Amino acid sequence: MIRPVFDRIAIIGAGLIGSSIALAARENGAADKIAIYDANEDVRRRAGQLGLGEVCDTPAATCSDADCVILCVPVGAIETACEALAPSLKPGAILSDVGSVKEKALAAMQAHCPESVHLIPGHPIAGTEKSGPESGFSTLFKNAWYILTPLPQQEEAYNSALDRLAAFWEMLGSKVEIMEAGRHDRVLAITSHLPHLIAYNIVSTAYDMESVGEGEVVKYSAGGFRDFTRIAASDPTMWRDVFLNNREAVLETLGRFSEDLAALQRAIRWGDGDTLMKEFERARGIRKAIIDAGQDTSDVNFGRNTSDKPKH
Amino acid sequence: MIRPVFDRIAIIGAGLIGSSIALAARENGAADKIAIYDANEDVRRRAGQLGLGEVCDTPAATCSDADCVILCVPVGAIETACEALAPSLKPGAILSDVGSVKEKALAAMQAHCPESVHLIPGHPIAGTEKSGPESGFSTLFKNAWYILTPLPQQEEAYNSALDRLAAFWEMLGSKVEIMEAGRHDRVLAITSHLPHLIAYNIVSTAYDMESVGEGEVVKYSAGGFRDFTRIAASDPTMWRDVFLNNREAVLETLGRFSEDLAALQRAIRWGDGDTLMKEFERARGIRKAIIDAGQDTSDVNFGRNTSDKPKH
Ligand SMILES: NC(=O)c1ccc[n+]([C@@H]2O[C@H](COP(=O)([O-])OP(=O)(O)OC[C@H]3O[C@@H](n4cnc5c(N)ncnc54)[C@H](OP(=O)(O)O)[C@@H]3O)[C@@H](O)[C@H]2O)c1
Ligand SMILES: NC(=O)c1ccc[n+]([C@@H]2O[C@H](COP(=O)([O-])OP(=O)(O)OC[C@H]3O[C@@H](n4cnc5c(N)ncnc54)[C@H](OP(=O)(O)O)[C@@H]3O)[C@@H](O)[C@H]2O)c1
Repeated sequence: MIRPVFDRIAIIGAGLIGSSIALAARENGAADKIAIYDANEDVRRRAGQLGLGEVCDTPAATCSDADCVILCVPVGAIETACEALAPSLKPGAILSDVGSVKEKALAAMQAHCPESVHLIPGHPIAGTEKSGPESGFSTLFKNAWYILTPLPQQEEAYNSALDRLAAFWEMLGSKVEIMEAGRHDRVLAITSHLPHLIAYNIVSTAYDMESVGEGEVVKYSAGGFRDFTRIAASDPTMWRDVFLNNREAVLETLGRFSEDLAALQRAIRWGDGDTLMKEFERARGIRKAIIDAGQDTSDVNFGRNTSDKPKH
Repeated sequence: MIRPVFDRIAIIGAGLIGSSIALAARENGAADKIAIYDANEDVRRRAGQLGLGEVCDTPAATCSDADCVILCVPVGAIETACEALAPSLKPGAILSDVGSVKEKALAAMQAHCPESVHLIPGHPIAGTEKSGPESGFSTLFKNAWYILTPLPQQEEAYNSALDRLAAFWEMLGSKVEIMEAGRHDRVLAITSHLPHLIAYNIVSTAYDMESVGEGEVVKYSAGGFRDFTRIAASDPTMWRDVFLNNREAVLETLGRFSEDLAALQRAIRWGDGDTLMKEFERARGIRKAIIDAGQDTSDVNFGRNTSDKPKH
């Protein structure tokens, strides 16, 4: 028989990530009891209808008996959520989160987390463009990386809590990595935050041109634009909070991006085909590395409506 | 019985688009005989092995008897290819192309096309990130737009040739649109050319950061970055030619993009969450419009490895 890692977990925030954790924990037997809370009454009701777990009406009721509490709210809401539940935390429990920014999330939790509780921030490198409790599914974390950013140099009890939390995520199918919070934020600025900012921006630019055009931007979006709109359909609140809370790393990465773009712009203006070729050729190498690392499908067009397309 | 639109078509350039036309024309019975030529001897050999059609050794042999000749070479090669075959064109034949830029393609063909031949440029809004004869497939053009940019105010013979070419593409499954070449280039600058430029650029930026990092850009690419690498895996020669030949429209669109990006950058720097929210929210509308228009799948993550994910 599979032994659950935790007797009782508490999930705060029943959106895409929270509901996916609930479904995955149950399906994989990683927790015996699953308590869930959301500040939004309507979301709580829907979470109950979806059978995500024992839906509680207050943070206190959700957390008081939990061995592990996971905050699944936008980064900007972590401090409020943490403040509300901190007094109910059981000594020796684990307090974690799934926020896409780690230094600010850590600080927000540290401001309220009691000494007796093991604070271990985390972040799944998995997600979709949808949000809300209905968008969750139990295999979201399967084969995905899960980054934990534990506090440095802790005693044994903390380290054993860290092992338990890692084991929990492994039961959900994730590959767990330990990383320093600041490094996490710099790495994710380029692999996730900048791509989202750029996608939002190109959609904005197109939007302004569309409004003076005749529906052509939407009509001919299969030429490349539609890929960007998927990313830009992600939750605005979540992403506002990411940019406000990872400001330095995002601005630094954006600065490099703009420099590089100015060089391409110059090459186009002056008809410098060699520079364009050089830049474009090395991009292929990164795509290959991503496919070789199992981080994306090699099917053409991501395998969209794929049945009749070649796989190579 | 289905009647082919053309007795004999000639395809010049047996890459992704050329080989897909050959396969689609045969499968749909749109042409009785399919002759194919590529300047690259190795590509000719592979085209023969793939059974794409009657592979010829010279442009003259391919075109001399063709009712419709379609240039499927990079935009920068259109003039050379056209010059080589122009003397062999049959009076009353159609000369077309599939280049992603239309004003420059038109000028390149006009420089050599005999008076007796009907010059009708075209562009399929369909493609993948792969190139070469092996990447072609017969359903590439199905349900995709096909833009024709005919010469203005022509006599009857020309207009009837235009009807035949449109009918050919409709038999391949495309929806045909007529557009002025300059307008095509401005619309595609935003729906296709700028997205590719931005994708190449972000991959470049990441590449430089990756080379000082520890493989983390590839490892954590599922956070958004991997979507951009697909587009940036497209053929460098094709895209160099697109940017060099649609310079004005691309630079104009890029200018707007950079302005918009500066505004987002400023909002991040000054912690202006309201501006970020406003921009991010309207992006969702465009995504919805694209899905409603049937221009992309609504499956989450494009339906990548999709079986266990919700469709809503
Ligand atoms: N989506 C992704 O792809 C992804 C991937 C990795 C990590 N993350 C991180 O995961 C977290 C959650 O994202 P998500 O996509 O699951 O968001 P979501 O679907 O929008 O769900 C968040 C839920 O939290 C609720 N909430 C807000 N403030 C709260 C509070 N103080 N107490 C309790 N509940 C509260 C929200 O209610 P309201 O709707 O009323 O605000 C909403 O129901 C974010 O920190 C995000 O950075 C997301
Ligand atoms: N790929 C897309 O997604 C897409 C979508 C819509 C439109 N288009 C347009 O379609 C055209 C072809 O693109 P593609 O993706 O099919 O390219 P591709 O797979 O690279 O094939 C182009 C072929 O043309 C050959 N070629 C080059 N110069 C030639 C010449 N003077 N005479 C005869 N053959 C020559 C090339 O040989 P070498 O390899 O030796 O150069 C190559 O085999 C381009 O104009 C592009 O803008 C592409």
